[in-house]
Amino acid sequence: MAGETSCVVLLSGGMDSATLLAKAKRENDKVTALTLNYAQRHKVEIKCAMQIAKHFKVSHKVLDVSNINSLLQGSALTSKDIEVPKGHYEDESMKLTVVPARNTILLSLALGWCITCGFNIVAYAAHAGDHAIYPDCRPAYIEAMQEVFDRAHYWPVKLWVPFMFMNKGDILKEGFKLKVPYEKTWTCYDPQEIVYTDRTEVVACGKCGSCTERLEGFNQNSIVDPIQYVVGSR
Amino acid sequence: MAGETSCVVLLSGGMDSATLLAKAKRENDKVTALTLNYAQRHKVEIKCAMQIAKHFKVSHKVLDVSNINSLLQGSALTSKDIEVPKGHYEDESMKLTVVPARNTILLSLALGWCITCGFNIVAYAAHAGDHAIYPDCRPAYIEAMQEVFDRAHYWPVKLWVPFMFMNKGDILKEGFKLKVPYEKTWTCYDPQEIVYTDRTEVVACGKCGSCTERLEGFNQNSIVDPIQYVVGSR
Repeated sequence: MAGETSCVVLLSGGMDSATLLAKAKRENDKVTALTLNYAQRHKVEIKCAMQIAKHFKVSHKVLDVSNINSLLQGSALTSKDIEVPKGHYEDESMKLTVVPARNTILLSLALGWCITCGFNIVAYAAHAGDHAIYPDCRPAYIEAMQEVFDRAHYWPVKLWVPFMFMNKGDILKEGFKLKVPYEKTWTCYDPQEIVYTDRTEVVACGKCGSCTERLEGFNQNSIVDPIQYVVGSR
Repeated sequence: MAGETSCVVLLSGGMDSATLLAKAKRENDKVTALTLNYAQRHKVEIKCAMQIAKHFKVSHKVLDVSNINSLLQGSALTSKDIEVPKGHYEDESMKLTVVPARNTILLSLALGWCITCGFNIVAYAAHAGDHAIYPDCRPAYIEAMQEVFDRAHYWPVKLWVPFMFMNKGDILKEGFKLKVPYEKTWTCYDPQEIVYTDRTEVVACGKCGSCTERLEGFNQNSIVDPIQYVVGSR
């Protein structure tokens, strides 16, 4: 339909992409979500992505591309033998969480899916807090990727990055208005198993850069984060 | 080692990338090949890629990413219900063989593998004959993809496309000098099974745009193509 906007949201299961899904749903005629399992250490986020898509009643494709993990080594998020660094999201040590070419791969797959669906927008939740450490979240990268989107195919696809200049606190502020169920989102890079006699629970570590940034965002909004953390970690 | 060049060659198993592998081996200090199985119709090319890498004594990673096939539909090369068009490589009908975002995905995966290996070049066998139909083989696309390579990560990777302004005939001319075993390469988009009483052989159709262009290249060099075609197709 002429003028209709249709959007593929790259949904990780984290709070940023969950907020993006809510925003995309409000601002577009058609929305679908895409989640990719690349054997990330924190793949608990995939279950969260499923719950979030269900919550927003959005069609959702979850694809196992875990085979690509062997191409993307040298990062704490994909290599089992590299520990997730503790500390602040902008610390130099957080570079260990950069996955080689990951976002370019995810965006390329989203582009393929977007063209296959006949949709015209790919939504990507990169935000200002990512800029210090993750080159593939910076405006200059996004501009180059838009050029690739423009030139890769006959079908025009816009790369939509509405949080590019917002921090986690700003995103949460918008998300509260959109009624995003943050209790269903997953942010931690280093999930911790808590073993009870009758069950095992996975909770956030509260110490990695990603948890630190999330907690700062909630503090900025004077709201208590509804998810479970390791006791004493925050 | 300072000044050392190390190269990941995207090897499909076709004649262009086989020639590129030979050229890369001659011109770089270290070379490795990468082949991706995306459940292409002509996946017989993967076996060819293995033989070619073996021939040139180059380490070779073959990765099954066939799950991504479901994201890349609407092309005769990935959708079983779309027939491969016959005719010339530059015919409008050949647009049916464009796979959404395929080359961007393959190049992104090669970028990840290149960074993981600590290598500094990704070699890509796009050539001038591709320009008419495949947007993701044109110089403007390659320029944009180089920008993405430059901005996606801390590690610098050059996208090397030495055949960008050469046609199939020119590539073959270079390949003959490099002693490329063209009898081991696969080009056809529409492999045909010939069933004998004691065995089944897969041969090239001789009619698709890809076969047509290959045969033109051999004609241009006044050399007979060593591979098997369907009888009477050429």
